[in-house]
Amino acid sequence: MGGRAEHGPDFVQSLERGLAVIRAFDAARPELTLSEVAVATGVTRAAARRFLRTLVGLGYVRSDGRLFSLTPRVLDLGYAYLSSASLPEVAEPHLEALVARVNESSSVSVLDAGEVVYVARVPTSRIMTVAISVGTRFPAYATSMGRVLLAGLDDCDLEAYLAGAALEGLTPRTVRTPASLRERIGQVRAQGWALVDQELEEGLLSVAAPVRDRSGRTVAAVNVSGAATRWDAGSIVRDLVPPLLETAAGISADLPPGKTRR
Amino acid sequence: MGGRAEHGPDFVQSLERGLAVIRAFDAARPELTLSEVAVATGVTRAAARRFLRTLVGLGYVRSDGRLFSLTPRVLDLGYAYLSSASLPEVAEPHLEALVARVNESSSVSVLDAGEVVYVARVPTSRIMTVAISVGTRFPAYATSMGRVLLAGLDDCDLEAYLAGAALEGLTPRTVRTPASLRERIGQVRAQGWALVDQELEEGLLSVAAPVRDRSGRTVAAVNVSGAATRWDAGSIVRDLVPPLLETAAGISADLPPGKTRR
Repeated sequence: MGGRAEHGPDFVQSLERGLAVIRAFDAARPELTLSEVAVATGVTRAAARRFLRTLVGLGYVRSDGRLFSLTPRVLDLGYAYLSSASLPEVAEPHLEALVARVNESSSVSVLDAGEVVYVARVPTSRIMTVAISVGTRFPAYATSMGRVLLAGLDDCDLEAYLAGAALEGLTPRTVRTPASLRERIGQVRAQGWALVDQELEEGLLSVAAPVRDRSGRTVAAVNVSGAATRWDAGSIVRDLVPPLLETAAGISADLPPGKTRR
Repeated sequence: MGGRAEHGPDFVQSLERGLAVIRAFDAARPELTLSEVAVATGVTRAAARRFLRTLVGLGYVRSDGRLFSLTPRVLDLGYAYLSSASLPEVAEPHLEALVARVNESSSVSVLDAGEVVYVARVPTSRIMTVAISVGTRFPAYATSMGRVLLAGLDDCDLEAYLAGAALEGLTPRTVRTPASLRERIGQVRAQGWALVDQELEEGLLSVAAPVRDRSGRTVAAVNVSGAATRWDAGSIVRDLVPPLLETAAGISADLPPGKTRR
């Protein structure tokens, strides 16, 4: 947690801490005690109690007396972004058409702090699918959409990313050095799309292409992913890349002109 | 905005106000000036500036100097709910199977402050579809899921809802009096599902059934909706209600035991 010292005199620390309380809850910790919230957010028990009581009063958190959990009202906050951004709305019918054509899941994401964040997703109706929803994040370096978004950075921003990125080996195939990641990003820039073969998770392949605004700047990435049991690099390039590039072009063309809102 | 007077001495007003700033942005107002944020949230310009600067510092808001807008990081807050709640995850494969079977969109919602809030949704791949996403809200009285959720309230909570609900005529068919809404809710309790025929929007029909926890309490509703050009009340009851009831039972059976987390 930063606080005033880091952020300047105008910084409202209680807003930062309150938002940190909301983010303390996740799949591994859907219910937390007061003490757990205090530990997770680095505040005193007294402060945690004030934030939790405030969030209960506002309807974002509920409590059975001992355990606290989030209410669906928290979705209103994420919904404020989804309803104010034109990209998810513009992309969705294009994703639907692509999924109907190739029978694999398709998503759109944007880059935030070195991670891809899913802003639209259309899953296939397969039973064995990937548990991803709007809001899911993955490290950019290990995903096809991340490679496309990194390729869209200017060289200065890309070098800053490469200098700071912790490249973890998520699978035996994950790119592990800035030099090899830089090389692959150069390839993405040259060919206009990115294929990632089981670098995020074993058995999962994904191919992505850039969504561009009127000035040609990459503002998002669209992907299709599939299982290694159904696809290999060759069949993806042959069967998925052409419809994916059409989809990316269709979304790009439908984006509103002027300042592109993500 | 409530504040300490209403909420008690522990209330952190700056957290309430900061969250109100996030919610000031929506589809109609994706970009706001400092003054517009101040007006929308009922605070001074100086206070609005502090909240906006804090949110920019935390990465939830960006600014071009004059206009402010939300970043995808806001999705992390809604994602905290989605990933901490088991219902969306449990429901999704059941919705997928139902949509594949009936070729109409299906959703799951819960009740919050007299409204249904979508927590899971699987759209069809039709081009003409309904613009609904996770986080969308509608008034409970005019929707099939709302009727199911109201039917699941105990009589005391239901009467409190009926006493306070403003029943607006969203279409010429919308239920307009507490007495007729109470009668329809009684019918839902008796038959175990709710059909709403163009009361939320002309041309839109929807049928919903309850998702119940182990104790039999209604914790969510699942629906299928379709266009009046393809469906009428008779064909819905014949073709959609049976698979919908199977889906509701399937989700209910898969919910984790013990305290049901929504």
